[in-house]
Amino acid sequence: MSQESKYKVVFVRHGQSEWNLKNIFTGWHDIPLSEQGHQEATLAGQILKQKGYSFDLAITSVLQRSIQTFNHIAEELQIHHIPIIKSWRLNERHYGSLQGLNKSETAALHGEAQVKIWRRSYDVRPPEMSIDHPDYPGKDQRYKHIPPSSLPKGECLKDTVERVLPFWTDTICKAIIEGQKVIVSAHGNSLRAIVKYLDKMTDEQIMELDIPTGVPLVYELDENLLPVKHYYLISQEELEKKMQEVKNQGKAQQN
Amino acid sequence: MSQESKYKVVFVRHGQSEWNLKNIFTGWHDIPLSEQGHQEATLAGQILKQKGYSFDLAITSVLQRSIQTFNHIAEELQIHHIPIIKSWRLNERHYGSLQGLNKSETAALHGEAQVKIWRRSYDVRPPEMSIDHPDYPGKDQRYKHIPPSSLPKGECLKDTVERVLPFWTDTICKAIIEGQKVIVSAHGNSLRAIVKYLDKMTDEQIMELDIPTGVPLVYELDENLLPVKHYYLISQEELEKKMQEVKNQGKAQQN
Repeated sequence: MSQESKYKVVFVRHGQSEWNLKNIFTGWHDIPLSEQGHQEATLAGQILKQKGYSFDLAITSVLQRSIQTFNHIAEELQIHHIPIIKSWRLNERHYGSLQGLNKSETAALHGEAQVKIWRRSYDVRPPEMSIDHPDYPGKDQRYKHIPPSSLPKGECLKDTVERVLPFWTDTICKAIIEGQKVIVSAHGNSLRAIVKYLDKMTDEQIMELDIPTGVPLVYELDENLLPVKHYYLISQEELEKKMQEVKNQGKAQQN
Repeated sequence: MSQESKYKVVFVRHGQSEWNLKNIFTGWHDIPLSEQGHQEATLAGQILKQKGYSFDLAITSVLQRSIQTFNHIAEELQIHHIPIIKSWRLNERHYGSLQGLNKSETAALHGEAQVKIWRRSYDVRPPEMSIDHPDYPGKDQRYKHIPPSSLPKGECLKDTVERVLPFWTDTICKAIIEGQKVIVSAHGNSLRAIVKYLDKMTDEQIMELDIPTGVPLVYELDENLLPVKHYYLISQEELEKKMQEVKNQGKAQQN
């Protein structure tokens, strides 16, 4: 196995959304960034600029918080003109019938212990979203090309991993191999999916990993697109502060 | 010829940029919107929302003022997720060596009479931009796929029309025929090119037409994509006020 870096790809997890702020299970609900989230995205752009990064292609989910995050980065790097590929496969983990509920509502409905299981376990699904739910994706134009049987109604992280990986291979890897400089702006759990695959992490390890918001994460890949190394574009000290924030908010699994 | 409306396409000319404000020949220089320009774009989005418009596809130039304009519209209509096609063919008229000069600098260099000719005539080109000019598009990554012989170095409106129309036919018409609801966010002269073609205007007529900034312009097309009618989405009175503003600024030909 070659250990020489040939490619770089940069990941950014979007910053705080208005529902993160209120501690609501967000999932596929298309909520905008909060004021803090906008600032985090601008800061991510400034860090990338400072470190001399630029990009040929942006890849986002179809949820506005990931697109707004890229738009701020585009503003800082002056790369509004690059193409954007937007895919539902990079969406956040679908939280089923929990979507739209806050932490205490969920605990009242299902009990603290059960909520902990849904948030901490790799392969236990939350309760399914009914097709009458206002957020049911089958009613949303942007998902009309997806057969109902393939539309998530509530995912465990394992499900998210399974829908993200085909997109990693078919679209992101393809662009990287073609020599494009790619930035991926996405969500806590869709990025976990890619990182789990790249770093061959166990189900337990990935549940322990909290990717901080708004911090560019660089993966250097060899000619076979296997990871050589990865690093965040801020100092260890700043990073630890950021990671602690994420842990304290306890929102890592519910964005 | 059928006169029944089958399709709708919406055009928006971006609002004021920072160089419009300073009365500088902008052309392909990638200057952001001014504060007023941002407000105009938001207003365009609000008008579209009020009138019940939504879109499946956005088409812009590769200049940030047209993309920023669409981003504000996306914000108002909550359609961040729709695909964006960005093409150099929708760029503003390339102003050659005049790019970056303000009105009085240009008059001092070339004389008032000559400047009037470049701005008012359909087929007289401005002086060519030298390949040493900081704005020469051959040095810009976003144009690297265009053979140097096809890269504009200074266009009259006739040249702009000739580069825009293939894109109208191959990309915009294709999307419309496929049934997509399309919004085109572009520039004074690239929109003139399309309007001239659709309405079979003479060279003189098109030079007289000032498309107001930030006002959604709807074209209804028949099954052959020939225009049935067109209208702006604000009242006649508001429109006349807007058109007068554009004329007073005398900027119509130099954006």
